[in-house]
Amino acid sequence: MPIAGIAAAVDASLPLAERLFAELRAKTHDGVGITRQSYGAGEQVGFDLAAAAARDLGLETKTDYAGNLYMTLAGRDREGHGVIVGSHMDSVPSAGNYDGAAGVVAGLVAVATLKQAGIQPARDISVMAIRGEEDDWFGITHIGSRAALGLLPPAELDSAKRVDTGRTLAEHMQDLGCDVAALRATKRFLDPKRIAAYFELHIEQGPVLEHDRIPVGVVTGIRGNVRSHKARCIGAYAHSGAVPRRMRHDAVLATVDYAAALESEWDRVEAAGGDLVLTFGKLFTDTSLHSLSKVPGEVSFTIDARSQDTRVLDRMEARIRSEADRIAEARGVTFALEPILRVKPAIMDADLQRRLHAGCGELGIKTMAIPSGAGHDAADFANAGVRTAMIFVRNPNGSHNPAEHMEMADFALGTRLLAWALAETA
Amino acid sequence: MPIAGIAAAVDASLPLAERLFAELRAKTHDGVGITRQSYGAGEQVGFDLAAAAARDLGLETKTDYAGNLYMTLAGRDREGHGVIVGSHMDSVPSAGNYDGAAGVVAGLVAVATLKQAGIQPARDISVMAIRGEEDDWFGITHIGSRAALGLLPPAELDSAKRVDTGRTLAEHMQDLGCDVAALRATKRFLDPKRIAAYFELHIEQGPVLEHDRIPVGVVTGIRGNVRSHKARCIGAYAHSGAVPRRMRHDAVLATVDYAAALESEWDRVEAAGGDLVLTFGKLFTDTSLHSLSKVPGEVSFTIDARSQDTRVLDRMEARIRSEADRIAEARGVTFALEPILRVKPAIMDADLQRRLHAGCGELGIKTMAIPSGAGHDAADFANAGVRTAMIFVRNPNGSHNPAEHMEMADFALGTRLLAWALAETA
Repeated sequence: MPIAGIAAAVDASLPLAERLFAELRAKTHDGVGITRQSYGAGEQVGFDLAAAAARDLGLETKTDYAGNLYMTLAGRDREGHGVIVGSHMDSVPSAGNYDGAAGVVAGLVAVATLKQAGIQPARDISVMAIRGEEDDWFGITHIGSRAALGLLPPAELDSAKRVDTGRTLAEHMQDLGCDVAALRATKRFLDPKRIAAYFELHIEQGPVLEHDRIPVGVVTGIRGNVRSHKARCIGAYAHSGAVPRRMRHDAVLATVDYAAALESEWDRVEAAGGDLVLTFGKLFTDTSLHSLSKVPGEVSFTIDARSQDTRVLDRMEARIRSEADRIAEARGVTFALEPILRVKPAIMDADLQRRLHAGCGELGIKTMAIPSGAGHDAADFANAGVRTAMIFVRNPNGSHNPAEHMEMADFALGTRLLAWALAETA
Repeated sequence: MPIAGIAAAVDASLPLAERLFAELRAKTHDGVGITRQSYGAGEQVGFDLAAAAARDLGLETKTDYAGNLYMTLAGRDREGHGVIVGSHMDSVPSAGNYDGAAGVVAGLVAVATLKQAGIQPARDISVMAIRGEEDDWFGITHIGSRAALGLLPPAELDSAKRVDTGRTLAEHMQDLGCDVAALRATKRFLDPKRIAAYFELHIEQGPVLEHDRIPVGVVTGIRGNVRSHKARCIGAYAHSGAVPRRMRHDAVLATVDYAAALESEWDRVEAAGGDLVLTFGKLFTDTSLHSLSKVPGEVSFTIDARSQDTRVLDRMEARIRSEADRIAEARGVTFALEPILRVKPAIMDADLQRRLHAGCGELGIKTMAIPSGAGHDAADFANAGVRTAMIFVRNPNGSHNPAEHMEMADFALGTRLLAWALAETA
């Protein structure tokens, strides 16, 4: 298929995208923003709209044990799972319309483009609408993708409860006709070895593309992290005027020292050209005990260090522990950091990245390599050994808020690239 | 009066102290600790007990416009105000029995000692029971001492409201028969030039004497302070994974940088042998907006820097401003520090300090020079130009809490020193 043909064919299918986005917005707006509960009403609206569109396009549809929906353009060779174009349909509460859904809609438009061009791919291409990616509803992430790959620990079916209903994941799955028994037996629906490739288009959740005036990014990897959700520094409360320095156990100044020491590790990594972001998103003295005139006796805080590089995370985790020991000794305080949790980075397939960059060149799309700071279903596929790639579309306002925004012109460029890659790969 | 005589005479009057402390405790215990509301019931209990004791001792009593009570042993020369031995009778809520009251009781015991020894001093000695020293009740401090010296701004009579009643200072004063009209006219009851000296005995509010195993301290000065009660660092909330460092406006890391920079000023002052304590008693991200996975957009904090040295406070105030400017520029945040408030230090009279040290030598009392980190009525007298001295008595548990403690043996040593100094000075 000639390049000019892809661009024009994608553009011809854009009204489908506009209609889907408009219906999604109308049906899942909560008055403030978009709300699509994982395994709930809002997410289901997205699934129903996608399934109806897939039927209109003449695609095969099927669902897996966990309720993920596959909308398939049959290939000449029907062995294996073929190429999957996935994204999630749920959202955090009062969010924007595109985080997640844009990837499903882009998949449908890309497949419609190939179909209308009369292309039958060598292998199946399935658009996968994924359930339960956001952690706001059940306190766990990537439920659909993990379940599809047989990686969801059965215990989570009963331990994870939806914040708005208090009911378990298993109960909500049952409501939607999922095969909970198969999930309890950790039966996998997808065999990673039989997936030719996994693609995901997603809005960027940071400001990098906007800042650099680039509409579409090719993702290098999805950052893993090392985190402490409930870290504390414990010192001793004392009179802020009457207690001399040598008798203080100041939890704020100890935490300041600690955060500065970890930031110096960030400096080091950055100077060496490594990938790292470090955030103390919460940091607070105890409002029931603190006072201007008291030496602070306790500070609670979080640590979120993210990198695409496991060695950087290893080293950061070591510093997280060693700096706490050093400063506790020096300042007469105690640090309680456990549990320190790790999520491993996911590297995007180097060959697919190269192809996407080549595709941008052929299509005349300005692009850049960009890390993903947030987690995505793509990470589960990549870490299961599937050749995986992600396309980011510019978003000026960040995600997980109602101001999230995507220009349809940028979406069209991202979807041209996706359609080009599918034509290439499948 | 021979030294041995003072020790024995003070000890002979100790049962008076024990009785007063026991009655105070019994009548102002709230179930948790001691509560003596400024210009309220608890404080009045102390005034009534002191006045009764003074009458028993044959002292003259009078009250000033603000309701402070003077219990006077007449001198041979009745010109001027003579020597004042002052302390406050109010307490913070659920406090200990001695913060404030110990100074009044010590004054009564010391005067009783002189009287029982048949000493008529050259000048009047007045034990002054002072009202409204603590800021917990009206949000303003040192009401009684400032009013006595004509330094209470009349506006505070109506603007200051007691937290537990919501009624104004003027209304509470009226209840107790104070001369509010005189206070509105800022009539002063005491002329600093006519006060020969001001003494105050107080429990130490920090752990220094306890730590160094010394029962009685001679105060060098009362630290002034430079403070910001409602400081804020304003950055911008952003995704903790997806936003690169160069696009962050991280309020926590900026505040960490700021606090570390001000602590380096503390290092500098300390290395130069200067007097300073620095405390960020409150420091907190916004609980309604912060998250582990958000770059923090705002931090609120307090600054409390205290020193006996005005130049140290000047320099610290300059750093408080200049470091904020530097870090705001470097990190793309804004600091809102105003109002930055100053309280000036009060230097204790050098000659009286020397005499008190000499007295300790003569009486065989182990002592040390010690700064007062907390404010005291003595500061108002010193800063009004009165020769002022303070005696600290060891307290192992800090003040403003029910665990505050004073051994009667230590109280006896402090009171011997006070009686000796009165005999010397008056």
